[in-house]
Amino acid sequence: MHHMQPTPAPTAGTDQLSMVVFSGDLDKILAAMIIATGAAAFDMKVNLFFTFWAISALRAPEKKGKGKKLIEKMFGFMLPRGMDKLALSKMQMGGMGAAMIKAIMKKQHVASLPEMFKTAGELGIQINICEMSMKLMGFKREEMIDYPNMQVCGVATFLADATDSTVQLFI
Amino acid sequence: MHHMQPTPAPTAGTDQLSMVVFSGDLDKILAAMIIATGAAAFDMKVNLFFTFWAISALRAPEKKGKGKKLIEKMFGFMLPRGMDKLALSKMQMGGMGAAMIKAIMKKQHVASLPEMFKTAGELGIQINICEMSMKLMGFKREEMIDYPNMQVCGVATFLADATDSTVQLFI
Amino acid sequence: MHHMQPTPAPTAGTDQLSMVVFSGDLDKILAAMIIATGAAAFDMKVNLFFTFWAISALRAPEKKGKGKKLIEKMFGFMLPRGMDKLALSKMQMGGMGAAMIKAIMKKQHVASLPEMFKTAGELGIQINICEMSMKLMGFKREEMIDYPNMQVCGVATFLADATDSTVQLFI
Repeated sequence: MHHMQPTPAPTAGTDQLSMVVFSGDLDKILAAMIIATGAAAFDMKVNLFFTFWAISALRAPEKKGKGKKLIEKMFGFMLPRGMDKLALSKMQMGGMGAAMIKAIMKKQHVASLPEMFKTAGELGIQINICEMSMKLMGFKREEMIDYPNMQVCGVATFLADATDSTVQLFI
Repeated sequence: MHHMQPTPAPTAGTDQLSMVVFSGDLDKILAAMIIATGAAAFDMKVNLFFTFWAISALRAPEKKGKGKKLIEKMFGFMLPRGMDKLALSKMQMGGMGAAMIKAIMKKQHVASLPEMFKTAGELGIQINICEMSMKLMGFKREEMIDYPNMQVCGVATFLADATDSTVQLFI
Repeated sequence: MHHMQPTPAPTAGTDQLSMVVFSGDLDKILAAMIIATGAAAFDMKVNLFFTFWAISALRAPEKKGKGKKLIEKMFGFMLPRGMDKLALSKMQMGGMGAAMIKAIMKKQHVASLPEMFKTAGELGIQINICEMSMKLMGFKREEMIDYPNMQVCGVATFLADATDSTVQLFI
């Protein structure tokens, strides 16, 4: 944050949140999206840098990447195909843990993960996907979910965003 | 941090640390409390936002929540009942890893986790518990440990604290 | 960041990144080093505070610590002996996951972890090792890799660095 003028209180739109979303666990992606949508509703500018395992959450199960090599197909097969397939970091119980959490969230009228991503798009949250991770895991841009503000870019973009941010987190 | 005036060096009480404590692993809770009490001893204002698995660390084993539904009782049964029951994220070895770490900490005169929470309270560290996680896991306020500055609140409180903080971490 | 003067844009060398590197997982250490070397190449001052499991990444397999007690030898035996022995946090598959990632990184001309540490040293990245973790795990300074800017110190050093930093992360 570069203050030119004395600032008595955080003003709408002046604060920025940058997060590295690294984990592909359902619970951590939920935490990231709750913080992100909360911050955007709070009038903060929000940038999410999805890298490593977290990219699996952005896969659209019905889309396919073209021209994949064998090892890239293997990765695609082994990693979760989208946000509905993510597992919890604890209490996995063969997928029952994730199902339980989703059922309770629904009962308590907490937005589901797909709903949170929809809200994130509407609130103008920027999703950046780590280019190097895409290459390493063999993911293609065309396999990702439809989302209004999404680009594939490098760590330099995260660092530039983070430097301008009031709050930075690694999840 | 909003500097009105040139500031030659960090002055006592002007810096603030906000942490999301998400993990319920013994090693990560230890890390969070070492950083938190270190910062408070360093005259920083410290806010901890306990969410998801980390809330288990705040359960008082001798207290019981009232009026719980079956699924809430199940969660209460499956999750660790307080900070003495937390497991390590690695080298669990059926609980032997946690016991080993505690034994070595004692031998090396490092404060135990309960002692760190006591110090945290004396240093004025604020503990906020995530309201949504409490609801999802069926925890009640009356089940939590005795601690001087503890409240149940939403992610907006964390974001307001984090925006005013010099340092923010997600653990 | 303490701005004495209006700052129109981030200037070389004025921004600082401080990270707690806690995890000993190959994927997380890779993420930490990619962010760290990226930031240093971006002219940021970078401090890494290695603690708990992450210290295993800094062990030199050919070096031995002197005067170790039995329990310290046990820890040394159970924990990974250096950055080449780290496992992934997911898809471990008995070490095959880590081997796969390394093979793909090589094929895609991504620097290996040892190369990243070499670059980090050349870019002047400071590595601080948590004194308390060293004591708890029985690691000795002389067991660590050769690295130009490395010291053993306490959490107060991290907090002082973090307070002066534009970006702070816990990995």
